[in-house]
Amino acid sequence: MTTEAGQRRGRPAGSPPNREAILAAAREQFAERGYDNATIRGIAARAGVDPALVHHYYGTKADLFAAALRMPINPREVLAGVLPGDVATLGERLVRRFLDIWSVESGAIGETILGMLRSATTHEDAARMVREFVSREALGRIAEVLDMPQPHLRAALAGSQLIGLALARFVVRVEPIATADVETLVACYAPTLQRYLAGPLPGDQPSKGS
Amino acid sequence: MTTEAGQRRGRPAGSPPNREAILAAAREQFAERGYDNATIRGIAARAGVDPALVHHYYGTKADLFAAALRMPINPREVLAGVLPGDVATLGERLVRRFLDIWSVESGAIGETILGMLRSATTHEDAARMVREFVSREALGRIAEVLDMPQPHLRAALAGSQLIGLALARFVVRVEPIATADVETLVACYAPTLQRYLAGPLPGDQPSKGS
Repeated sequence: MTTEAGQRRGRPAGSPPNREAILAAAREQFAERGYDNATIRGIAARAGVDPALVHHYYGTKADLFAAALRMPINPREVLAGVLPGDVATLGERLVRRFLDIWSVESGAIGETILGMLRSATTHEDAARMVREFVSREALGRIAEVLDMPQPHLRAALAGSQLIGLALARFVVRVEPIATADVETLVACYAPTLQRYLAGPLPGDQPSKGS
Repeated sequence: MTTEAGQRRGRPAGSPPNREAILAAAREQFAERGYDNATIRGIAARAGVDPALVHHYYGTKADLFAAALRMPINPREVLAGVLPGDVATLGERLVRRFLDIWSVESGAIGETILGMLRSATTHEDAARMVREFVSREALGRIAEVLDMPQPHLRAALAGSQLIGLALARFVVRVEPIATADVETLVACYAPTLQRYLAGPLPGDQPSKGS
């Protein structure tokens, strides 16, 4: 755990250490300072590289923000472990995994998600990025596995409950949700997700009246 | 509507105009600048009063923040118009009213709620205030009318879905929730709220096993 090679352990081949350092620095700065106040210059300084290298690898601050968001949560990877399987229990799997992620890595991930929401509430550019990111990397992947009408509506409904749960439990920390055990929350929320993902919804069939 | 007395119309007896002006100024500053950057001095200047008067009426900035939050939404008043009636349709009434509030007065209320969330994600003091405010003025009132076990859990579950809906529709603006018509959203979300408020939940009966 504390070997001299520890810092580089787990780095995939072909991923230059500078890129990793820049993303780590970006995550720290965005989490600490929000989208507004983080700067390419500051991120570069923290990563120990030239600002031009940050631009070269990641383009604008907006590009870097999106790249940094993608890393700690890695929704593609997380969802790849949750989506395959019986759709009849997908709601439960999603709630459980979502709570796991926030609980286990609440530091890095929690801060990043909060930085993301903070940015989305202050800047249309950031809001658009969050929206595109969430739609593409999270909701889009859920929608893909749903063999139901209106898969994007279904995924968005599920996402709206998950983010509300996260806000209630981890941000505002409303009781009794803040301290409820995971099994209680899974039992409360899984049926909601399940209905959104696989139950009947308005608009599934074209209405005769309109 | 535009009589000379218009400015004072509706002001309750015993509520000095300075107090109203201070709250209005506080709402504007908190919405514009967030909790951090709004100052008693700035609010007082905007209201055209001495900072000492603001302290006298509302105490600390934290007290003023809570007072200002209570005004534009006035959850007590809103809920008083929604909670009475058949519990079997309470979920639908809450979703509909919640969407109405955000749509009709999305400027003032939206900005204030966003300022509140922004503050909650950056300051434990603000998070506590938001938590206390939401728990007392919104969730607590819903819990009061539920003739069911675990009323506070039920109200919190409902609140978690409503705030998630608000974030998806008005903040991140995820499609298709952002542009869905109200009736579609009511039909999607009302059954969720209804189950949270009046359906069976885990923990309703003490478990035999634990």
